[in-house]
Amino acid sequence: MSASNTLLAPPDINTSLAALNAGLEQPWTLAGNTLAKTFVFADFPSAFAFMTRVALAAEKLDHHPDWTNAWNRVDVRLSTHEAGGITALDFRLAGLIEASARR
Amino acid sequence: MSASNTLLAPPDINTSLAALNAGLEQPWTLAGNTLAKTFVFADFPSAFAFMTRVALAAEKLDHHPDWTNAWNRVDVRLSTHEAGGITALDFRLAGLIEASARR
Amino acid sequence: MSASNTLLAPPDINTSLAALNAGLEQPWTLAGNTLAKTFVFADFPSAFAFMTRVALAAEKLDHHPDWTNAWNRVDVRLSTHEAGGITALDFRLAGLIEASARR
Amino acid sequence: MSASNTLLAPPDINTSLAALNAGLEQPWTLAGNTLAKTFVFADFPSAFAFMTRVALAAEKLDHHPDWTNAWNRVDVRLSTHEAGGITALDFRLAGLIEASARR
Repeated sequence: MSASNTLLAPPDINTSLAALNAGLEQPWTLAGNTLAKTFVFADFPSAFAFMTRVALAAEKLDHHPDWTNAWNRVDVRLSTHEAGGITALDFRLAGLIEASARR
Repeated sequence: MSASNTLLAPPDINTSLAALNAGLEQPWTLAGNTLAKTFVFADFPSAFAFMTRVALAAEKLDHHPDWTNAWNRVDVRLSTHEAGGITALDFRLAGLIEASARR
Repeated sequence: MSASNTLLAPPDINTSLAALNAGLEQPWTLAGNTLAKTFVFADFPSAFAFMTRVALAAEKLDHHPDWTNAWNRVDVRLSTHEAGGITALDFRLAGLIEASARR
Repeated sequence: MSASNTLLAPPDINTSLAALNAGLEQPWTLAGNTLAKTFVFADFPSAFAFMTRVALAAEKLDHHPDWTNAWNRVDVRLSTHEAGGITALDFRLAGLIEASARR
């Protein structure tokens, strides 16, 4: 049995990644020990409104993204620092981020 | 010639209101000396993301709404305090708020 | 034993209110069935940064304020709608809002 | 005569940097073609409230930071992309960011 903040084994990561990406136009990818995706918006206010929505979800989940913003672009990298890589928490946050980008 | 923060005469308000409401599902209405509309969202994060977008537009325009939020609902009232009523600035902000709600 | 969303009896409200207000320059007051306070800031960005911090705390707590903003001013009213009045949850949110205003 | 988005010459950058850093506990530094500083806060809500305040100032100025956030930490890099380096606009934004961090 594994807690949500236990490092996932590579096959589990691949399974979860396939599930996360099902139906998405732009997929999440693995970048080093992180789950990564770049979101591009119409302008800065749209990008920052997305970041605000993600901030609310992340603070509620108590798990936060590493992210970079440059005007209309937001690069997201997810990993669980205490675990040293990707855990179920990161997939949960990725799902919430997708929902935030869609609305 | 009138500056954007000059009180609009009732016929001008009616003309601008008709133009603002053209094509909107839910119209803005006149409530006392203010331009009013209630926006309802799926949940609090959606409402607050909308408010963040409006905050960015308002601060840029240097003209801010009077607004009330209760979970998924945002009541907006626009008027120009120095002018004591509705001015062209309020219609400009209303247009930006509509754009913020749509995205 | 009472859950955090059970209506508080008037003596319990008074006790909790005294505890909340201990050490505060501006006290919270009772306004109808709500716990109320007005916060005034230097300008709109300061007011909205406060609101953002409160939004994060409220979404995490799953309990949200009824609040009105006009430029540098934020009027907060707290009550638990399902309970029809003030509960322990409202005092918890009030404490978090105070912490948000101080920083 | 130079517009605010004209590339600054190295001696002008040094003069402006000294003026910006006067009285600051933590200085801004030059990192490549950017003006850089890392801000560390108590927690994520404090970091994101700071980002919200900076977002409002940046959108008003129509000049935005490149920035990275990881929980309580915000790394800011300023440069004017069209100019290919640091301009007076970047120093103006840096000043506004400092004011945002102090409050």
